Amino acid sequence: MADILHRIGVENVSPEQVYDALTTLDGLAGWWTEKTAGSTEPGGVIELRFRPGGFDMKVVDLDPGRQVRWEVVAGPQEWIGTHVQWDLRQDGDYTIVLFTHEGWREPVEFMNHCSTKWAAFLLSLKQLLETGEGAPDPRDVKISDWH
Amino acid sequence: MADILHRIGVENVSPEQVYDALTTLDGLAGWWTEKTAGSTEPGGVIELRFRPGGFDMKVVDLDPGRQVRWEVVAGPQEWIGTHVQWDLRQDGDYTIVLFTHEGWREPVEFMNHCSTKWAAFLLSLKQLLETGEGAPDPRDVKISDWH
Repeated sequence: MADILHRIGVENVSPEQVYDALTTLDGLAGWWTEKTAGSTEPGGVIELRFRPGGFDMKVVDLDPGRQVRWEVVAGPQEWIGTHVQWDLRQDGDYTIVLFTHEGWREPVEFMNHCSTKWAAFLLSLKQLLETGEGAPDPRDVKISDWH
Repeated sequence: MADILHRIGVENVSPEQVYDALTTLDGLAGWWTEKTAGSTEPGGVIELRFRPGGFDMKVVDLDPGRQVRWEVVAGPQEWIGTHVQWDLRQDGDYTIVLFTHEGWREPVEFMNHCSTKWAAFLLSLKQLLETGEGAPDPRDVKISDWH
């Protein structure tokens, strides 16, 4: 098993504001992909679509202002059954976001790509919350031939 | 053991040009940190300094246009003895860069930070090579309270 790990700090933004950007369709559409649909409630499935494809995330755990956990239930073969977890905490003027995309069966090249792409989307989340303007698909930062 | 993985594609740039940006002091200073010194030859030690600290990389393997491998010989405790490897290949109009920072003893929070920060520096490398202007320290993208 292999995991993707990231950490950002969002300045002058509360954990509750970060939590909202992870648990509402408007929030998700502001930093991740404009094509966001489905249900963000516990047990619901969030449908995210991108130019190169998409995936569905089942909401498996929500702890307001502290934690969000999803299970990938549809999408690229390598993603199915993996989990994405967000842990939030306040630290001075920052909300610290610890991100894990865990349970990859093998460290394939696609995992390298997703790791870098997650970083770009996390920086989009930070930018959305700090400035009001994120960079979701299709306005996302292009990192390679795989977008 | 845990690894940080990334992948970028640098458009209309050859593997040799990417290799130069990884194996010359001028190249490294253009995307990573302006405070770069030491020797980039095999067996040499590259000294990289940042506002929050720095580290020394021993050059343990060089395969021109294809691979660069370093061992961390000084720096943060968690980094000592880990390896950083760059694998380059041409794919159509892109040079694909596969990056691994391998051998972390534990997935500590600092590893989350370094993963995201590596992504920001890889995008700086891409930007330097595609546009002539990177974002090395101290002009680097700030990702959190840890810089």
